[in-house]
Amino acid sequence: MEALEKKLGYTFKNKALLLNALTHSSYANEARHGVTSNERLEFLGDSVLSIIVSNYLFNQFPNMPEGELTKLRASLVCEKSLCAFSRELELGKFLQLGKGEDKGGGRERDSILADAFEAVLAAIYLDGGMEIARNTS
Amino acid sequence: MEALEKKLGYTFKNKALLLNALTHSSYANEARHGVTSNERLEFLGDSVLSIIVSNYLFNQFPNMPEGELTKLRASLVCEKSLCAFSRELELGKFLQLGKGEDKGGGRERDSILADAFEAVLAAIYLDGGMEIARNTS
Repeated sequence: MEALEKKLGYTFKNKALLLNALTHSSYANEARHGVTSNERLEFLGDSVLSIIVSNYLFNQFPNMPEGELTKLRASLVCEKSLCAFSRELELGKFLQLGKGEDKGGGRERDSILADAFEAVLAAIYLDGGMEIARNTS
Repeated sequence: MEALEKKLGYTFKNKALLLNALTHSSYANEARHGVTSNERLEFLGDSVLSIIVSNYLFNQFPNMPEGELTKLRASLVCEKSLCAFSRELELGKFLQLGKGEDKGGGRERDSILADAFEAVLAAIYLDGGMEIARNTS
């Protein structure tokens, strides 16, 4: 996880948050009671990403109409973009996946990578606050 | 606008932001060059609302699965909920509407009220920051 923290440029105070963000439901389902998946973090991360991107676009393009801002935001937060960010961070190799998912190529699956990116962003937000999440993303 | 600030429990440093949030496109379209509608603020407000609600639900319901959190968030940020908040603030009477829209009952139209609520939230966020927006909403 240290290698990932280095790539993120952020060291977690609470390492459990980062581990949770990297835990796919397939792993949590196979594991003993007490392991939770990254799905709740993904829920939060979706909104963290949205405000970071919206705020950036709003300030960066002061004359752009709402319709174009909305299209641009959608293109930046789509699965394709998120899994590209995820691949840049090599998130796949840090994921905790169930055995079947791992064998089935889960570490390269777009949807899993995109969700993990949102979960990691939420973990940074919870651990370090909005400004850190903004600067890291 | 002072009456609205009283209802909001927040006094704007930059009153122009609040005025912008209250300016419907029908008014901006009729007005002389230089008046902009609240649509860009609504774009930003959508994300401000999302992170406030997501953060609240994430903390308030630590054991609720992602699927239920998502449903609950959707029910809280839907047009029906937002225009109810808007009506509580009596936003309708503070709106700047075009003549036709005003005569046609625009001050009571759900979509206009919901959009204005998001725009006002964005204006508070820009003027006072996320914590003020969170406490006001």
